[in-house]
Amino acid sequence: MTSTIDPASIGKPKPDRIRRHVRTLTGFLPETDATGKAKWPRGDEKTWKEALRGVATDEPAITKAIVNHVQTSLARQPHNLDELGAYQAAALSVRDNLIVNWNETQLHMTRKAPKRAYYLSLEFLMGRTLDNALLNLGLKNKYSDTINKLGFNLEDLLDQERDAALGNGGLGRLAACYLDSSASQELPVWGYGLRYQYGIFQQLIAPDGQQLEAPDPWLQNQNPWELPRLDVNYEIRFYGHSERLEGGKAVWSGGQEVLAVAYDVMIPGYETRNTNNLRLWESKPKRGFDLNSFNAGDYERAVESSNSAAAITSVLYPNDHTTFGKELRLKQQYFWTAASLADIMRRFKNLDKPITEFPDYVAIQLNDTHPTLAIPELMRILVDEEDVPWDLAWNITTNTFFFTNHTVLPEALEKWPVPLMEQLLPRHMQIVYDINFAFLQAVDKKFPGDLDKLNRMSIIEEGFPKQVRMANLACIGSRKVNGVAELHSELVRTTIMKDFVELYGVSKFANVTNGITPRRWLDQCNPGLSQLITESLKIPRNTWLKDLYKLEGLLEYAEDPAFQRKWAAVKQSNKQRLAHYVETTLGHKVNTNAMFDVQVKRLHEYKRQSLNILGVIHRYLTLKAMSAEERKKVNPKVVFFAGKAAPGYYIAKLIIRLIVNVARVINEDPDTKEYLTMFFLPDYSVSLAEVLIPASDISQHISTAGTEASGTSNMKFCLNGGLLVGTVDGANIEIAEEVGENNVFFFGHLTPAVEGLRYQHSYHPVPVEQKSPALATVLKEVSAGRFGDPGVYEPFLNTVRQHDYYLLTDDFESYIRALSMVDEAYQDRTEWIKKSIRTAAKMGKFSSDRAIQDYAQEYWNIESVKLGDVNGA
Amino acid sequence: MTSTIDPASIGKPKPDRIRRHVRTLTGFLPETDATGKAKWPRGDEKTWKEALRGVATDEPAITKAIVNHVQTSLARQPHNLDELGAYQAAALSVRDNLIVNWNETQLHMTRKAPKRAYYLSLEFLMGRTLDNALLNLGLKNKYSDTINKLGFNLEDLLDQERDAALGNGGLGRLAACYLDSSASQELPVWGYGLRYQYGIFQQLIAPDGQQLEAPDPWLQNQNPWELPRLDVNYEIRFYGHSERLEGGKAVWSGGQEVLAVAYDVMIPGYETRNTNNLRLWESKPKRGFDLNSFNAGDYERAVESSNSAAAITSVLYPNDHTTFGKELRLKQQYFWTAASLADIMRRFKNLDKPITEFPDYVAIQLNDTHPTLAIPELMRILVDEEDVPWDLAWNITTNTFFFTNHTVLPEALEKWPVPLMEQLLPRHMQIVYDINFAFLQAVDKKFPGDLDKLNRMSIIEEGFPKQVRMANLACIGSRKVNGVAELHSELVRTTIMKDFVELYGVSKFANVTNGITPRRWLDQCNPGLSQLITESLKIPRNTWLKDLYKLEGLLEYAEDPAFQRKWAAVKQSNKQRLAHYVETTLGHKVNTNAMFDVQVKRLHEYKRQSLNILGVIHRYLTLKAMSAEERKKVNPKVVFFAGKAAPGYYIAKLIIRLIVNVARVINEDPDTKEYLTMFFLPDYSVSLAEVLIPASDISQHISTAGTEASGTSNMKFCLNGGLLVGTVDGANIEIAEEVGENNVFFFGHLTPAVEGLRYQHSYHPVPVEQKSPALATVLKEVSAGRFGDPGVYEPFLNTVRQHDYYLLTDDFESYIRALSMVDEAYQDRTEWIKKSIRTAAKMGKFSSDRAIQDYAQEYWNIESVKLGDVNGA
Ligand SMILES: Cc1ncc(COP(=O)(O)O)c(C=O)c1O
Ligand SMILES: Cc1ncc(COP(=O)(O)O)c(C=O)c1O
Repeated sequence: MTSTIDPASIGKPKPDRIRRHVRTLTGFLPETDATGKAKWPRGDEKTWKEALRGVATDEPAITKAIVNHVQTSLARQPHNLDELGAYQAAALSVRDNLIVNWNETQLHMTRKAPKRAYYLSLEFLMGRTLDNALLNLGLKNKYSDTINKLGFNLEDLLDQERDAALGNGGLGRLAACYLDSSASQELPVWGYGLRYQYGIFQQLIAPDGQQLEAPDPWLQNQNPWELPRLDVNYEIRFYGHSERLEGGKAVWSGGQEVLAVAYDVMIPGYETRNTNNLRLWESKPKRGFDLNSFNAGDYERAVESSNSAAAITSVLYPNDHTTFGKELRLKQQYFWTAASLADIMRRFKNLDKPITEFPDYVAIQLNDTHPTLAIPELMRILVDEEDVPWDLAWNITTNTFFFTNHTVLPEALEKWPVPLMEQLLPRHMQIVYDINFAFLQAVDKKFPGDLDKLNRMSIIEEGFPKQVRMANLACIGSRKVNGVAELHSELVRTTIMKDFVELYGVSKFANVTNGITPRRWLDQCNPGLSQLITESLKIPRNTWLKDLYKLEGLLEYAEDPAFQRKWAAVKQSNKQRLAHYVETTLGHKVNTNAMFDVQVKRLHEYKRQSLNILGVIHRYLTLKAMSAEERKKVNPKVVFFAGKAAPGYYIAKLIIRLIVNVARVINEDPDTKEYLTMFFLPDYSVSLAEVLIPASDISQHISTAGTEASGTSNMKFCLNGGLLVGTVDGANIEIAEEVGENNVFFFGHLTPAVEGLRYQHSYHPVPVEQKSPALATVLKEVSAGRFGDPGVYEPFLNTVRQHDYYLLTDDFESYIRALSMVDEAYQDRTEWIKKSIRTAAKMGKFSSDRAIQDYAQEYWNIESVKLGDVNGA
Repeated sequence: MTSTIDPASIGKPKPDRIRRHVRTLTGFLPETDATGKAKWPRGDEKTWKEALRGVATDEPAITKAIVNHVQTSLARQPHNLDELGAYQAAALSVRDNLIVNWNETQLHMTRKAPKRAYYLSLEFLMGRTLDNALLNLGLKNKYSDTINKLGFNLEDLLDQERDAALGNGGLGRLAACYLDSSASQELPVWGYGLRYQYGIFQQLIAPDGQQLEAPDPWLQNQNPWELPRLDVNYEIRFYGHSERLEGGKAVWSGGQEVLAVAYDVMIPGYETRNTNNLRLWESKPKRGFDLNSFNAGDYERAVESSNSAAAITSVLYPNDHTTFGKELRLKQQYFWTAASLADIMRRFKNLDKPITEFPDYVAIQLNDTHPTLAIPELMRILVDEEDVPWDLAWNITTNTFFFTNHTVLPEALEKWPVPLMEQLLPRHMQIVYDINFAFLQAVDKKFPGDLDKLNRMSIIEEGFPKQVRMANLACIGSRKVNGVAELHSELVRTTIMKDFVELYGVSKFANVTNGITPRRWLDQCNPGLSQLITESLKIPRNTWLKDLYKLEGLLEYAEDPAFQRKWAAVKQSNKQRLAHYVETTLGHKVNTNAMFDVQVKRLHEYKRQSLNILGVIHRYLTLKAMSAEERKKVNPKVVFFAGKAAPGYYIAKLIIRLIVNVARVINEDPDTKEYLTMFFLPDYSVSLAEVLIPASDISQHISTAGTEASGTSNMKFCLNGGLLVGTVDGANIEIAEEVGENNVFFFGHLTPAVEGLRYQHSYHPVPVEQKSPALATVLKEVSAGRFGDPGVYEPFLNTVRQHDYYLLTDDFESYIRALSMVDEAYQDRTEWIKKSIRTAAKMGKFSSDRAIQDYAQEYWNIESVKLGDVNGA
């Protein structure tokens, strides 16, 4: 029933909808009485307390919870329950437990009111949750037993879960590892992202080897891991116009308003009740359906505004390491940063502290330049809404933000056309101009008259159209800037940020080498190895999983033959698991006695899957040229590829096509197939990585020197006892530092040589035949149609023959030699196992716990706030 | 993780997705062993059975259930729980109980495999569910106590629920009452409808008195009363082309395919565990997002197909009693009937009976012509898919369907342009032609050469464009046709279906007078009266609520002064409840000592709210003309109006505007306001009806004779002890037959006179001044601007002055006299109360239980299938 409504208010927020805290929001505390004691909020305290639940940890309670969800949430019965249903019921019962902890964590944090850090990332590549949640809650065994009694198998149920694939690759998966480490270390860290209706596309492979893309409707079967918080919502404005007032202020009005609605994803810490939050925003129309247009017969118009609002969070952009000036992408970026900042500001204001203390309570990490609009947005809120003078606002802002750079590839540095910004975000464009003006004055003061420098450092790049350089804005507006591995951070300081280092001094520019969470990337994906490690170290599993340096204790067993055997047996069973996967999905038998050589990552020219496939062809041609006798001496090898190419990335897609078609030829060749086979596994994902990584003997991280900022899959392989063949790039370098260069197979030119080689390719080219006869032969065979229609591959082959920007011709010979060394080393299996043990043992540094502690201490200045172990109500 | 996928299969149904029964669907039975005993389906029987739950009926269990939902489903805690949250938690706990019963009912029905009836209705006006569900489960008192202990008040929580308003008015509310009666009588009846994302619009009143319309986003806060069954879905085709094969068969292919997904709404019976199902279909795109268009930068195209699919069930058409040839409406009708028939056919085929027995297991009721496409659709399934010969298929079809006509107004008879049908449903158009051809041959055989008759009876109406007459098709394809009240059914036989009666004989045309459920419309909305009745009849409440004829027992108390006082006291407290509602929503005080005169229903010229408002003006002018002394003798009266006008219905909207503005004048007039006030209550709904109806002393049902098929609100008012002033129309007649004509205030011309009067208005008009001087004065005052800008109302006034299609000028004097008689009768309050008691006592016939039994026995031939009282597993 509704009452009369003033029509002027239709579509307007209700007057009583104050944007400060209301009862239903998080961050609300029970009232206290005169003595400061919390009053029981409502109803009869005893009745409530008897009914309130904790985490259900005993088997009968777990059984009841699952069965109750079967009956009620799913409306099923034992006789019509399938595996998907059983997964859903189990997941819902786990969700209930997570929520209990989540609720208490939020209340506890509100009470303690510590400084908090917010991790703004456009991507969170979470993968699956059930297994991880069970491990973190310490309930996996009990669930496994319960589910058995109910007639199912936990492993099968785990397989029913769809990956949450809200990311492209490393950057998004890093964000996910960081959330796990923050929660596990009881740090008050929230993630903020977007709830894409469609995550990264599903990759299909056509019969001709082409990549096809299908949408990823991951929300189709309801998502038990999120909590819609429909009452947490903000209005986000686009377009309109901005009118300047006095004192730097302005009023931004008109345009389109869109609603941002919060969905909370629970992030359980490992072996702690602390359960952090990842808040994802969904866009919704503010007004819903336009009934008047509908009644006037114009359905299209009736849904128009509804659609254009819903569009914003409809799909994750399937691209990384390139920039592309799509208006919708810019809308995503603003929508997300504006909603997140509004939420952060509301939480801060609830503390009743002076606005000047904002940076004492809030640290915001910008994961790459994607959230850079948060800088002018905070300025807008402070100056236009909170009446803070410009200079003070700027001081607050530059003490709040921290910026992580993820790439020095020039094509990956984000820029937005000024006309687009002016139209979509007129007020922010003014603020950017104002920031730039003050900034350039300061530069000019320090380096008078250096026009080139002013041009390079300006936030605005001259041209047609002018562009806004997001990296410059992010650097200028942040307290610190970091790269993600030693080499990369050095490159940031000496290339793209060189001028800024001269201006601000070097201390603003630091490094945090990426990390990975050992909970997912060892304990969960490789339970056999985790078990072996725990047994051998003779400390509880949770001790070394929370202090990964403890793995060094394995070094003393490296020479122990019994331990070596067990180590090898674990690897072997992981190889069998992968072989089983290949057989059930591709229908191919895999020789698990062969060496497993894996390269899995996004398809990019700089990552040089091209080098790998050309190397495989070389190996194949070499094998073909051998006598049957000679072949018997060869180390048998299975090469695995997986990875998605951005749908518009023509060359990357050609490389996939070549891989698939080469595989087709060599896997069928009776002469060689015992010694060399190859598989392209479609639809690379976190879950597939969890199967592939523990099974690898060797993995390839072979980017052109200076192009891969860090890489994280390299760490994952090593943590699971796989060795690396790689270039001297990214985190490979630090891995080698840890494990010793003799345990890593390095090859290729070093970063300082790259510029010179590229110059040479353009101005003094040397034919491939001369630089690498082996490579020339390979190219010739492809061109000759040995792997199908040669015309198809010419555009790719030409990138190698001409210019060769990624230095394949320069590195090929050295690459082949490195692979020979790998073969040789693999012949001495005991030595290999020792390398494998030593490698895993030295991975302590690469735990994301270490990385997050770095951020917490050196950047955000936050501390752990542990939730007590007893129910505190 | 996905495997390689043959791209040819993208978007195609998975090969293993057979459309017969799969485990997760309803209608699946446990397997049996060799002896026929049901095998325990899965896991350890004891573990399962110990964990399985029944309905939670004791207070501790109810408390735990509610608190558990607070903590987990809502992620709230006692200190941040508001009334909406408490409502949601309580509702979810009730939902759990309903699901337990629902599950068992479905299993039981599958086991017993009785003949089932399906009620196809484009509208189900359910209103709120929580209160009804608690009453039906017999748990209202326990919930009330529990909720008190938790610090809330049940009545306040009930008020948090949004109405499910998937209907326009009587037709949709009738469907809802029928579902309640079917479940309460343990009949195997399912409803099939559409899950509109936006129900009937919210009505707002602008300051100038105009109706404004706002969307009704009823699903905004999640709906606890539905059960998404994402695994129950069908592909529905539109457009494309149909190729005829031999033997009447055809292949229909191409075009657009849309997915229909089932949402089940639980329909608990009263005081029985039987819980029936209302299955609502939601439209979804088959393919989701078009990633290729998106990647190519064309976002619009990427969402296009997704939108056009979602559009189908986006909104309920806010219109009734007119036809309007909107393609989207036709799409709704086909989408819904096709999904429903596919579902019905799957269920039937699961029985493994020969297709000829279809009508022995399935009866389908067509609620008005909206689902008439079900007739050619069943033919299509039988002929094209099941290979049934045409004549046999026709036999099956005409023994399956039953058709209820709801109106004889010519402008309300549905017709669809042939070109539109041909484009949207090419195969169905062929089938309609084939049906028509055979039908007209039969007509011609019986009435050779009667071309006029052939023209009138043809399914195809000649013209530009040709049209498909849905009522003719529905009649030809059904086993029986019925109207909804005696007079209406008689009019059906003698006017629109006259030719068909001559062809088929009269026995095909029958009557089922509408009914209402006494559970909602007395027990729930008027607990005081329900309590008094139970006490007085000295039988359990559930006895008379299930056999409403028992109310006759009240007759013996009609003369008992003590009972009269109690009866009056209940009415008085209901009037106070309404007064409180008016005060809190409109801010007006209401005199509860005055007579409450109510007219609430859709705004339509034929329902003649016009007559009422003109009568109010007349009363006002009469009062103004009196001396203060004279006025003191007048019966004080408060007039209530409520009702929505279709957004495009200009005259109806003008009438609302006039009502609002007249109210504004007279409510402020110090001379008269003690004796006459008037309110237009915005946004009429089931919930508002539940407050208004119990409070009325008199209500108005004053349609032009022969236009109101039945009316059901008249029954509701009488059941709550309100008297009627009405025309001799619809169910008013039968009500008078029951309660005696001296207890009803009839007036106006009778149906047979209508045609003559209309003829007279057109060809021999008599000025209003002559026919009704009183009405002429009223019109003059409105025209003179007494109630605001007179120009505004001229178009409405002209419909009275010219032609006067609805006979206001003819009935006005008699109407005024009837109202005088009402005033007079009200002066003798004791006599009035006796009338009120006698009226309620004689409402037995109008229980929808009686109506549904009529359908069950005389039409569908189905029997009750009661679920046992103990848990049968
Ligand atoms: C699914 C997925 N994609 C991408 C990456 C990043 O891989 P890399 O560090 O090799 O670029 C990872 C890390 O393991 C991953 O799990
Ligand atoms: C909300 C609503 N609308 C419409 C109707 C139908 O009213 P009537 O029978 O007066 O047309 C009813 C019945 O009481 C109702 O509850």
